[in-house]
Amino acid sequence: MNMRTDKRLHDRQFVRTFFTTPTAETGDADSAKKLRSAIGLSGMQAPDVWVPDNEDATAPNMRDEGAANIAEVVAEGGAEFPGEIHPRVVWHRDSPETRYTGFQHMLEIADPENGAIEHIDGFVIPEVGDIDDWKKADECITMVEHEYGLEDGSLAMSVIIESGAAEQAMTKLRAAMGNPSNNLQRLFLLVIGEVDYTKDMRAITPTGSLPAWPEVRHNTSSAASAAGLIGVDGPYDDIRDVEGYNERMTENQAKGLLGIWSLTPTQVVEANRNPLPPQEGYWLIDANGTEVSLDEQDGAWVYSGDDISLEETDDGYRLTVGSDSTQLSADELHQELLGLTEYVPSLGDIVNSMEEFEAAKEAGKGAIAMTRAASISIDGVTVEISSDRMWDEATYQALQTPITLFQDVYEHRPDQHEDLTAIYSEDVVERAMNVGS
Amino acid sequence: MNMRTDKRLHDRQFVRTFFTTPTAETGDADSAKKLRSAIGLSGMQAPDVWVPDNEDATAPNMRDEGAANIAEVVAEGGAEFPGEIHPRVVWHRDSPETRYTGFQHMLEIADPENGAIEHIDGFVIPEVGDIDDWKKADECITMVEHEYGLEDGSLAMSVIIESGAAEQAMTKLRAAMGNPSNNLQRLFLLVIGEVDYTKDMRAITPTGSLPAWPEVRHNTSSAASAAGLIGVDGPYDDIRDVEGYNERMTENQAKGLLGIWSLTPTQVVEANRNPLPPQEGYWLIDANGTEVSLDEQDGAWVYSGDDISLEETDDGYRLTVGSDSTQLSADELHQELLGLTEYVPSLGDIVNSMEEFEAAKEAGKGAIAMTRAASISIDGVTVEISSDRMWDEATYQALQTPITLFQDVYEHRPDQHEDLTAIYSEDVVERAMNVGS
Amino acid sequence: MNMRTDKRLHDRQFVRTFFTTPTAETGDADSAKKLRSAIGLSGMQAPDVWVPDNEDATAPNMRDEGAANIAEVVAEGGAEFPGEIHPRVVWHRDSPETRYTGFQHMLEIADPENGAIEHIDGFVIPEVGDIDDWKKADECITMVEHEYGLEDGSLAMSVIIESGAAEQAMTKLRAAMGNPSNNLQRLFLLVIGEVDYTKDMRAITPTGSLPAWPEVRHNTSSAASAAGLIGVDGPYDDIRDVEGYNERMTENQAKGLLGIWSLTPTQVVEANRNPLPPQEGYWLIDANGTEVSLDEQDGAWVYSGDDISLEETDDGYRLTVGSDSTQLSADELHQELLGLTEYVPSLGDIVNSMEEFEAAKEAGKGAIAMTRAASISIDGVTVEISSDRMWDEATYQALQTPITLFQDVYEHRPDQHEDLTAIYSEDVVERAMNVGS
Repeated sequence: MNMRTDKRLHDRQFVRTFFTTPTAETGDADSAKKLRSAIGLSGMQAPDVWVPDNEDATAPNMRDEGAANIAEVVAEGGAEFPGEIHPRVVWHRDSPETRYTGFQHMLEIADPENGAIEHIDGFVIPEVGDIDDWKKADECITMVEHEYGLEDGSLAMSVIIESGAAEQAMTKLRAAMGNPSNNLQRLFLLVIGEVDYTKDMRAITPTGSLPAWPEVRHNTSSAASAAGLIGVDGPYDDIRDVEGYNERMTENQAKGLLGIWSLTPTQVVEANRNPLPPQEGYWLIDANGTEVSLDEQDGAWVYSGDDISLEETDDGYRLTVGSDSTQLSADELHQELLGLTEYVPSLGDIVNSMEEFEAAKEAGKGAIAMTRAASISIDGVTVEISSDRMWDEATYQALQTPITLFQDVYEHRPDQHEDLTAIYSEDVVERAMNVGS
Repeated sequence: MNMRTDKRLHDRQFVRTFFTTPTAETGDADSAKKLRSAIGLSGMQAPDVWVPDNEDATAPNMRDEGAANIAEVVAEGGAEFPGEIHPRVVWHRDSPETRYTGFQHMLEIADPENGAIEHIDGFVIPEVGDIDDWKKADECITMVEHEYGLEDGSLAMSVIIESGAAEQAMTKLRAAMGNPSNNLQRLFLLVIGEVDYTKDMRAITPTGSLPAWPEVRHNTSSAASAAGLIGVDGPYDDIRDVEGYNERMTENQAKGLLGIWSLTPTQVVEANRNPLPPQEGYWLIDANGTEVSLDEQDGAWVYSGDDISLEETDDGYRLTVGSDSTQLSADELHQELLGLTEYVPSLGDIVNSMEEFEAAKEAGKGAIAMTRAASISIDGVTVEISSDRMWDEATYQALQTPITLFQDVYEHRPDQHEDLTAIYSEDVVERAMNVGS
Repeated sequence: MNMRTDKRLHDRQFVRTFFTTPTAETGDADSAKKLRSAIGLSGMQAPDVWVPDNEDATAPNMRDEGAANIAEVVAEGGAEFPGEIHPRVVWHRDSPETRYTGFQHMLEIADPENGAIEHIDGFVIPEVGDIDDWKKADECITMVEHEYGLEDGSLAMSVIIESGAAEQAMTKLRAAMGNPSNNLQRLFLLVIGEVDYTKDMRAITPTGSLPAWPEVRHNTSSAASAAGLIGVDGPYDDIRDVEGYNERMTENQAKGLLGIWSLTPTQVVEANRNPLPPQEGYWLIDANGTEVSLDEQDGAWVYSGDDISLEETDDGYRLTVGSDSTQLSADELHQELLGLTEYVPSLGDIVNSMEEFEAAKEAGKGAIAMTRAASISIDGVTVEISSDRMWDEATYQALQTPITLFQDVYEHRPDQHEDLTAIYSEDVVERAMNVGS
């Protein structure tokens, strides 16, 4: 139904990782060394989409050599690479010269005589402008396809959104993509390029750090949904800040932006892993405005921070959150704790719930209550909590995204099977592949 | 002037509540019991718009019976129901079969032989896609109107925004609604459907809770304004969390989204009440980043939290907010407290200010200072504060929205007169009906 | 390349300040006194764009006199005024009568017999609606130009965005501006009018304060970028709240909205100054979620708040942030402090870094590490920190915006040279004028 699940011209419904590699290094005996290293990656270190980057990552005077390097390295190693390969060429909405150079580089990389084209899934076009500029790039790729006898639309086109004009163009894709005078159905990824977007918007921050741009991330995700494409967030500059990178991904996922740019194999591992559900479920508590995860100890979930305290009193309990202290009966405490806590389900938990709902549906029930119980321990006082959540068809479908993602990954990335089984166990993986639809 | 105040095809300028009810229950002797119960509501428990929900709230195999139930129950009780009645039928941008079923259900519900149509104000169409899909739904309703000899556009059409495509379509309404080849002037409510929107956007949160989607709420409100329609926020799942529901409404109102979905009569009461000004005005203080309301005691407004403290010293005052402590003169303290406090006016306060401004305007003045004074008490130290706010025509008009809302409610909901008078007093209600153009 | 740097029809690439003045005061012997006072401003007190405001700032019955006053005062003093002059006339998307009055006022102000037109740079049109309404205003200005033999498009047109319809119209500018049947290339500023926008959106806040409208600010900035225009934020009502006004500007700059409305000469000074880099650089520390600036004392940067504490222990250091306390080695402490601190560069710092990168590029290097070192002192414990940041062409260009802004200001505002030199020193100013591009 949904264009993304029709898999139209591309195989993947989801892309977690978009990993760029310089195509040519000055002053190195083997100027393609980084390309050779990247194409050898596999498992959790290999991205879903690998981008030999003949634009910003490569010095301007090395880009002709870079294009040649891409052709050579992909011809050699492309057959074994587990992800898709989408080289980035140069392009600029304001420069016909740059566009012509990008076109020439595509012609070179795709030349069948070089032997790379059978492993190339598409091209990444940076610095696009309004929809007419996107059509120019599409036309260049169409000419490449015809020059070499490839099928119309067989090469995907992904773009980097790094201008206000491109941001507006995204709202016109759905209508433009059906037009017989273009092949825009080849569109694949909408990738945000925050560094150049910041420049185009002329934004300033006191420290020179990148603005968070929440609205661009929303607009990209919504446009991807409307046009059946896949949204990807831009690079996270501070490559040592693993925690910050993961926080950004969690934020993005709540916007429907499940993919992110990776600059290093370490970032690739984090980005391949982050959108998948955790191995073990755990409880969160709202500690005076901050979500804190509880530690499991002897079957109880223990809070050990300073923002919440709990003591038994003669006639019940005294619960203190921040500077608010209240006297509660056992029942009231139960209600209060239900309000403060939330459970983060593991992949196994999600599979269990889905199987349970599917069985109920089979038996003719439209909605069932899922119960979740736990012992919560604060300051040595342990309280049993238990809550019911009603599941109906809508809940079932809305919570299915992590499973669909998992299935897409498992289907397209056999090189990650071992890792996934090690994380989740064979039983959970097998059941996860069978629930849903 | 404004399309919304022209009241075009619909009567209501404002809709506070959008209340859905299942249309048929499996295994119940009277499968329409919930419909019968809902159509009997009145006063603060009755919604502005009641939606017999023949889509998600009703099991798929019960929907034919549901359509029949709607016709029967509305025929019986529709004349007495104090709000508008807009049944929701099935529809899906990706499924011609579902669209055809929805069309058949509309034909059945609207059949004059069933006696319901004179009480039906319109239909709610879920899961719409791009603007062309909206036009298909419009056309189905036009055919229903012609089949039964109803006037063109007499049935309103409300849509649920639950896809990126629909989000984009909202920017095209203003231009499309004037086109003679459709009857899109029948459009009434733009309702956000966050559960299915989350699914369509493929968003994930760790706990499975709904993302907040601030941008969709803005886009819906702005599109409603541009096209002369009314924006309504989606359901708030946690029906026991009354405080959270009210916080969500306050947030929405700052976005111009004055209506919200209600799942229970209790939620209806909250949602009918929340956008109206309070019965009594009160003061807020900024307690180290959190707005806290002060308690009135013996004519003074008392702060009793721990985040602000105040003491008299030999040469003035020491004010401590969080960990910042400053020594202040009486004048400086007055300034500081003016900065920290804000007044939330009651309906009576707003009416007073408007009357005062109208009298000044009558007397030839374009701007007047409104004075607001209070005694603020912290740690037993009481300080008199007083501030002037300049009111001009723009202030007057911008602050008029709660009054216009009140007048719209009072005019269209006689069944709430008694409640409104009990809350605000007869005098305030009468004056509120007379201020403002 | 970029339309904004092509300078198309207008001279300025940046506008920091948009200062409105009433055009006629009731009951004053010289009803144009405020206009005369404003046109005499210069230096940091004079705005980039001065707006004699014949709409909201002037009483309705004084507007004919206001138009005459504008012509008279600008004829007298326009030659000496250091900024651009763009009078605001009346206009309303819903009122042909108001539009006709605005047209008449433009005809009067621009009449060559009045001698003002050679100093008038354009007009500001409030309350615009959809793109067709913008075209009507454009056409009125075209007729004014033809009536008086002015060149097509020589009068700029700026609009106030104060309706959902205008918000949507901004996405259509790029395509409309190339159309030979209009002169929309005259567009200059997109100014947000939050007070009337709030009214149009029918938004409510409990205290009657303005909503923050982050999405409108984003949409305006993005549309300005897409269409080669300049975005400006609306008025900040609380004219005594200098700190709040500056915080709003810092927030806006991160959205690419570098200009803001000013209601008083004091606000003009703040708004002229705020987007330029500081005179002296300084360090920030993340004190448990709040960014706090450190004080320089004897060469060290000292934190003196209560949220972070640091002590030496037998085997290293104990760092406490909020209620989290950790034992760290010297190396770990260094890493931790690097993560918590950030440097805000001065204009001189930015010039230094850019010169250094330009020299490296000249010498054939594509990327260099910029080192920033400092002594950070907490609770008397002093720690040396040092970090490298890689600069490549993209970093260089993204961080260039403050310099481009500075150069634009320096070029167009000779009356501010003295102030700028006093702030930054002659040496830094001269070097700032030479780096970049």
